[in-house]
Amino acid sequence: MRITALAGGVGGARFLRGLRTHLDRTPGLDDTELTVIGNTGDDISLFGLRVCPDLDTLMYTLGGGIHEGQGWGRADESHRVQGELAAYGAVPQWFGLGDLDLGTHVVRSQWLGQGVTLSEVTERLSRRWGLADHRVRLLPMSDSPVETHVVVEDEEGQRAIHFQEWWVRHQAAIPAQRFVAVGMDRATPAPGVLDAIRQADVVLLPPSNPVVSIGIILGVPGVRDALRGTAAPVVGVSPLIGGLPVRGHADACLSAIGVEATASAVAGLYEDFLDGWLVSEEDAEGVRLPRATVQGRPLLMTDRDAAADIAGAALDLALQLARR
Amino acid sequence: MRITALAGGVGGARFLRGLRTHLDRTPGLDDTELTVIGNTGDDISLFGLRVCPDLDTLMYTLGGGIHEGQGWGRADESHRVQGELAAYGAVPQWFGLGDLDLGTHVVRSQWLGQGVTLSEVTERLSRRWGLADHRVRLLPMSDSPVETHVVVEDEEGQRAIHFQEWWVRHQAAIPAQRFVAVGMDRATPAPGVLDAIRQADVVLLPPSNPVVSIGIILGVPGVRDALRGTAAPVVGVSPLIGGLPVRGHADACLSAIGVEATASAVAGLYEDFLDGWLVSEEDAEGVRLPRATVQGRPLLMTDRDAAADIAGAALDLALQLARR
Repeated sequence: MRITALAGGVGGARFLRGLRTHLDRTPGLDDTELTVIGNTGDDISLFGLRVCPDLDTLMYTLGGGIHEGQGWGRADESHRVQGELAAYGAVPQWFGLGDLDLGTHVVRSQWLGQGVTLSEVTERLSRRWGLADHRVRLLPMSDSPVETHVVVEDEEGQRAIHFQEWWVRHQAAIPAQRFVAVGMDRATPAPGVLDAIRQADVVLLPPSNPVVSIGIILGVPGVRDALRGTAAPVVGVSPLIGGLPVRGHADACLSAIGVEATASAVAGLYEDFLDGWLVSEEDAEGVRLPRATVQGRPLLMTDRDAAADIAGAALDLALQLARR
Repeated sequence: MRITALAGGVGGARFLRGLRTHLDRTPGLDDTELTVIGNTGDDISLFGLRVCPDLDTLMYTLGGGIHEGQGWGRADESHRVQGELAAYGAVPQWFGLGDLDLGTHVVRSQWLGQGVTLSEVTERLSRRWGLADHRVRLLPMSDSPVETHVVVEDEEGQRAIHFQEWWVRHQAAIPAQRFVAVGMDRATPAPGVLDAIRQADVVLLPPSNPVVSIGIILGVPGVRDALRGTAAPVVGVSPLIGGLPVRGHADACLSAIGVEATASAVAGLYEDFLDGWLVSEEDAEGVRLPRATVQGRPLLMTDRDAAADIAGAALDLALQLARR
């Protein structure tokens, strides 16, 4: 079987690690190939290095190197290089770069600087994490640089800042007026992205941010059409529990695009291609969708087993829909 | 007083730190301004980062951050990033890059990438090390990239390799046929270099490698002429003790250019501008120079005080020559 997923960072990565666990422990499913299309709108150049936060969170989580507590960055991390950057007065200083994590960025930047595509760089980096051994293929949504910027307005006036500045530095506390995916007009899907959607047996949308993670991937020309056209059932998992994001600032992002923070409204963002929608049990009652099957269950990924169970439920829903 | 010195890495840095100590503890000399013109022929791009080994050794030594034992790199260093680079299979793996040291290279590369000149980058980096507070100004010999390559021949045939590959990876064990300063034909002296030589009261050549450190600086168009033309006495310190380099591979470098590893022969490389030549006491007897005054004394920089004494002796010789 071939499963393709669109994913952002922490929530998507934990869900997909759960999915891999579920597949590996389910007879007949352990040889399933999982293709992950990662959001690159969060990418940013810092200190001359190219940082791809979502790809790295996916890679570290699926490859066993993630810092479990924080959900991003490397386990057993240190910050010696960052201390030097600060001592030299290099800016910005609001983005935490661990030493081990920095190794990834240095290597990525070196290869990108040699003209290697982000797809190929991501494959090379993934090799070290043994993703292929786990039957996981990690693709960036695009090889073209796309950077999400946030139009904000505060006492300093209206301006557009990089998504990371809004998210990390300001903790999404400055109201966002809108998001602009800079470079999207020139972007094309990375090699394999559209085929992975079209040729999948199941397409899953993990509980990633519907606006700045999955929403950005959907903006890559051709991706939305591929989702509409694929024969595979498309099943999403709501990122909200009782109308609130489990982590991150999905509510602030939804508010910026004028969408209510409800499981129904989020499903509405996907309504042209969504076949199944897994929502938190307490949200299930209010959700009625014209063409997608809704199912409620506990959605809190309290540990790896819980994530595996949730991913298994999403997959089961997709397989039921496929049989219709 | 204004002293200008041409310098390579470890030996030059220790000598110059000794000189600064000598100046600071000598009444009337403590306000002396010291300009150091550093060799950049050792510079190399590694992992997409610009590494300037001699400038960094000078900066760390004069700024108090040097690893005393090895003479280069940072005190209290770690190698976590390098472990990651190796795990990703990034090359080369024969050049040791510490985490703290890497911070310098990341910042330098970021600034160079923004179009800042190496001179300005070096000044900014030096600020963090308080060099100006110690009345030390560190200048790269040139803002244009110059890289020393070594023509070698072994079982793999004749080829040119980067100086660092020859020096660090092969420990200068492959016989060098000649050195090529790639980029020198397009190089100009960095701002301030020629003036620092012309307007100095004393010019010193520390016991740096006469071929691949001082020799490379002398190759920058205009530098040799400035040394010939300056009114300041030019005093050099022999890098050999009993015909052997104290550290490094000066003998292998001299052999490659067909020059004997003797204090006389090294002085011959400077004969068109050298006024005084401080040699090791055991070498003194055999040294006769047509126009330079030779003085013998112990030259082993066993500790900081010994280095200060040697530097003081070089300065005293220069001041004697200036009074003539």
